[in-house]
Amino acid sequence: GAAPAVQAQPTIRWRLTSSFPKSLDTIHGAADVFAKKIGEMSGGKFQVSVHVPGELVPAFGVVDAVQQGTVEAGHTAPYYYFGKDDTFAIGTAIPFGMNSRQLTAWFYDGNGMKLMREFYDQYNIVNFPGGNTGAQMGGWYRKEIKSPADIKGLKFRVGGFAGKVLSRLGGVPQNIPGGEIYQALEKGTIDATEWVGPYDDEKLGFYKVAKNYYYPGWWEGGAQLDFYINKKAYNDLPNDYKAMVEAAASHAHTTMQAMYDARNPAALKRLVANGVKVQAFPKSVMDEAFKQAMELYEELSASNPNWKKVYTDYRNFQRDANLWFRFTEARFDSYMQSVKL
Amino acid sequence: GAAPAVQAQPTIRWRLTSSFPKSLDTIHGAADVFAKKIGEMSGGKFQVSVHVPGELVPAFGVVDAVQQGTVEAGHTAPYYYFGKDDTFAIGTAIPFGMNSRQLTAWFYDGNGMKLMREFYDQYNIVNFPGGNTGAQMGGWYRKEIKSPADIKGLKFRVGGFAGKVLSRLGGVPQNIPGGEIYQALEKGTIDATEWVGPYDDEKLGFYKVAKNYYYPGWWEGGAQLDFYINKKAYNDLPNDYKAMVEAAASHAHTTMQAMYDARNPAALKRLVANGVKVQAFPKSVMDEAFKQAMELYEELSASNPNWKKVYTDYRNFQRDANLWFRFTEARFDSYMQSVKL
Repeated sequence: GAAPAVQAQPTIRWRLTSSFPKSLDTIHGAADVFAKKIGEMSGGKFQVSVHVPGELVPAFGVVDAVQQGTVEAGHTAPYYYFGKDDTFAIGTAIPFGMNSRQLTAWFYDGNGMKLMREFYDQYNIVNFPGGNTGAQMGGWYRKEIKSPADIKGLKFRVGGFAGKVLSRLGGVPQNIPGGEIYQALEKGTIDATEWVGPYDDEKLGFYKVAKNYYYPGWWEGGAQLDFYINKKAYNDLPNDYKAMVEAAASHAHTTMQAMYDARNPAALKRLVANGVKVQAFPKSVMDEAFKQAMELYEELSASNPNWKKVYTDYRNFQRDANLWFRFTEARFDSYMQSVKL
Repeated sequence: GAAPAVQAQPTIRWRLTSSFPKSLDTIHGAADVFAKKIGEMSGGKFQVSVHVPGELVPAFGVVDAVQQGTVEAGHTAPYYYFGKDDTFAIGTAIPFGMNSRQLTAWFYDGNGMKLMREFYDQYNIVNFPGGNTGAQMGGWYRKEIKSPADIKGLKFRVGGFAGKVLSRLGGVPQNIPGGEIYQALEKGTIDATEWVGPYDDEKLGFYKVAKNYYYPGWWEGGAQLDFYINKKAYNDLPNDYKAMVEAAASHAHTTMQAMYDARNPAALKRLVANGVKVQAFPKSVMDEAFKQAMELYEELSASNPNWKKVYTDYRNFQRDANLWFRFTEARFDSYMQSVKL
């Protein structure tokens, strides 16, 4: 039964700045889902307005804006901010890191949330996982990649931190926001680019100027987006609104990955029909990149205490998770990929 | 800024019956998370009490109780109710069906939610995905399984619908609630059992009486739980509470899988340390089971219009999803499982 009660709830308006253009209904859409759900749950009393890059803040200005309280919230890929501290990268994806389920598990049932929040605290940020793209594709290349030598001198747009490993292979990484990549590739300012996967990449049109589409994106085996909330704005919320923020983020986390997983297959088919050549990175490239990544992580662990603290726990979790996923998950999937349905 | 407003919100109390014993903090825990989050978001005005099997309703009585309005809500595995209609099974897992990410994608961005809700409507049920176990293990066997012949005559506890395929292989399926399996296995009433995976299975103690632990659970490549809500109870909710139900379910969906993925690895290690022999089902068993499953699905499509409508869409989605997952997801995971971290 339902009996009416009277309750004072504050009216709150937040501004959320996204790093992603509105055309990307997947990754930008997760912020829209988050805002809409909070509005619904609060009966319109807690409203979050979503802003595209450049409207209030540049695409890569989310951390500064949330830290300073210019906006109450942001939706971004933490690894864009590796220039401030490489530890940010662990919040999205590091080369040869965890896949999406493993990363979600580390955040929600391992030490991931606790450790990342300790780290984000110095930036006045409280974070919530807000979507994962799944394992990304390895990007679009004008020329084929046959060995590690083909990476040397390659001007390659890559999201954030992965550029550090690419540099060690002799590549020339470029950190360019999603909305500006096509032009750079078309003009020849860059030789190659990665973004996410078939559904987003098709929209951005890369296949028109580079036909070689490689996999896997070994630097993004499961790239997580986060909602970043200004600490004071979050702490000022009543408890019911705090719980809404958490649950709305989880809803966006679930539905964003669902969009990618549901829409990538058809997009891949269309790309192939448009003459795209889908191919695996040679093992020699994977092995050299893996070696360089592991060396980089050792160096960072020696030089950056923040990195060392978070990465040590991440790595241990990942090692055990891979051991387990090797059995029933991998066997089930490989069998299903071998049969004709 | 925050300005106080005055708003009337109804006080609502729901009873939720779970199919799972409290000892299973993963799968029972998802209902606790759902209830707690709704309580927090509503400032305690919308309260959901969670009840264990037998307290109000038997473990497998959830559909009847929700349909009749004995309780407002339930948390269960839809495939337990395949005796009412085989279409229920598609809501959890069918042999050689989708993995967890694929099923979530089908529900949230494919036609899954729409089709299942049309089906559930005749039972007065509105459903929300509420957790996924991931690919399950194939269970505990006193004797080794070396060929399809070893399935013949095997008294095997298996969750719901999968028993239909097992029967076609000559097995003798038993549908027993989680809380009652150990005794049956110990007494020899059954020869083998499956439940979920290392973390839950260890708690239920099966390794003490059957040492052969097989993978993959080809009948549960990603088993989804659902929150079932009585249609009238749901429709009577104000819109803000409806949104809370949806977001709380998504939060439980995310965090339940996180628990399994985070806790299974260490449990598997402990089981192996206790002398458990982990081994893959022979390909001959997988192939024969696959053949029988596909034949069963054809028969059901010919005899049951509900099944045909839902399964046709499910199968098309699955076919495309497997095509896509074969590339970057599978290659990333297999590479990571091949290297030493």
